[in-house]
Amino acid sequence: MAEKLMGKDVAAAIKENLKAQVAEIKAQGVVPKLGIIRVGARPDDLYYEGGAKKTAESIGIDFEVFEYAEDISQEAFEKAVQEINGRKDVNGILMFSPLPKHLNESKIRELISPDKDVDSLTLGSAAKVFVGDKTGFPPCTPQAVMEILHHFEIPLQGRKAVILGRSLVVGKPLAMLLLGDNATVTICHSKTQDLPGVCREADVLIAAVGRAKMVKADYVKAGQVVIDVGINEDPDNPGKYCGDVDFQAAEGIVDKITPVPGGVGSVTTAVLCKHTVLACKMQNQL
Amino acid sequence: MAEKLMGKDVAAAIKENLKAQVAEIKAQGVVPKLGIIRVGARPDDLYYEGGAKKTAESIGIDFEVFEYAEDISQEAFEKAVQEINGRKDVNGILMFSPLPKHLNESKIRELISPDKDVDSLTLGSAAKVFVGDKTGFPPCTPQAVMEILHHFEIPLQGRKAVILGRSLVVGKPLAMLLLGDNATVTICHSKTQDLPGVCREADVLIAAVGRAKMVKADYVKAGQVVIDVGINEDPDNPGKYCGDVDFQAAEGIVDKITPVPGGVGSVTTAVLCKHTVLACKMQNQL
Repeated sequence: MAEKLMGKDVAAAIKENLKAQVAEIKAQGVVPKLGIIRVGARPDDLYYEGGAKKTAESIGIDFEVFEYAEDISQEAFEKAVQEINGRKDVNGILMFSPLPKHLNESKIRELISPDKDVDSLTLGSAAKVFVGDKTGFPPCTPQAVMEILHHFEIPLQGRKAVILGRSLVVGKPLAMLLLGDNATVTICHSKTQDLPGVCREADVLIAAVGRAKMVKADYVKAGQVVIDVGINEDPDNPGKYCGDVDFQAAEGIVDKITPVPGGVGSVTTAVLCKHTVLACKMQNQL
Repeated sequence: MAEKLMGKDVAAAIKENLKAQVAEIKAQGVVPKLGIIRVGARPDDLYYEGGAKKTAESIGIDFEVFEYAEDISQEAFEKAVQEINGRKDVNGILMFSPLPKHLNESKIRELISPDKDVDSLTLGSAAKVFVGDKTGFPPCTPQAVMEILHHFEIPLQGRKAVILGRSLVVGKPLAMLLLGDNATVTICHSKTQDLPGVCREADVLIAAVGRAKMVKADYVKAGQVVIDVGINEDPDNPGKYCGDVDFQAAEGIVDKITPVPGGVGSVTTAVLCKHTVLACKMQNQL
């Protein structure tokens, strides 16, 4: 049976490291702070927000939620975001999306300074990830994948990493991060011919398509490391979640695999806090 | 023997199309203009500039060179670039790089507006290419590769495209452009294990590493399309150029191949003019 790569072990290590950093920062009279901007109250957003709050508090990071009514005007919301962005005590900003349709989301995203953009909402952050500029924050999910690979010391240099999915929030930035670690990177997707065959070529296979259990036994091979980014409603267990990988089919074949839940999703809020602490240090030249 | 994919055929088709567009633009009282910023007088820059001028003139695009002494100060050069960028009659700007070392090149690049940045010098353009925003201009060389693939109707959807090289001017943006055409994209490089084996997997192999004739017979297979982006001094023929592919070794094996010279390099100035015409249309809402 495959070794399960548990997200909580990775998150714990990140948090331990951050606690020490936050103590040092506080010794200089500064407290890192994460600001969350939420319009409305979608259950998924509230769930993530709760997790982020818990993680932030456990590390000693201040946390503030800026909540707005769903019918807020573009003008009022722009003003609010600009004010939050201008606050010296708020080091990192996460804004839940999608915003209500009457709001111009791409315009509002760009009101966040790249140096506070801890979940890569702006074009400026995207550009930095693309060009490999380490001062830019990648989105938290692909960074969480990298944290898992690093924590469990999965070799990447020269190895074949295959990413299933080419989204802007996972696939594309993850490709850039894996290239930064000298992996040979393949991006495949729904149009790929012989998708199972391409995935079987991987040393490290990352599934990020958002389709429940689509990666079956014929997509994997012995010796592989499989990272499952998907979080989908489980068609076979109402009320439960599952990944993009058919875990039961894969765990008897591959070498290591992240479970869902308990894998990548358990690491993202720790990454959000890591980015916030780094943002705080850069902003205060610490 | 492989079919030679001649750049001049592609460039001729692009220019024919642009001539018609430029005639329509001129009928509205507007003349597209390309501005070239050059510091000093490197022979390579002068050679490219001459080619760009010839191409622009053949299409009916105005062309102006802004030349500066190598010892120009940062302040004076910033002012000059801002002035050129502000000119309403200059639709596209190309600036030769690298700039002399005493100049802050990354700062100067960002003085060019993304809508005039016809060779993708700015982070804004890089971001647009990364996210797949068609209003952003990719660098001319990867776009020239795409023009060749489209002109010769090379199937890309679902096929394996392997890019050898991960530079910001070719490899990375080309990966994004190929993904936009639904190819399955692999980026490999000097650290890739079994590089010849990875390259042999390609339906379309693009070599962009800048190492003379490194792609030998064992990197290719029957049926492949090979695009050679390299322009290197030929170690076997002093004073001549050669590509990253050992052409003599490959042409007996693969299905189609671009020669060097006469391949990708023959298309880049046509792409530069295409971007300038598009920039002119967007700026004038034509």
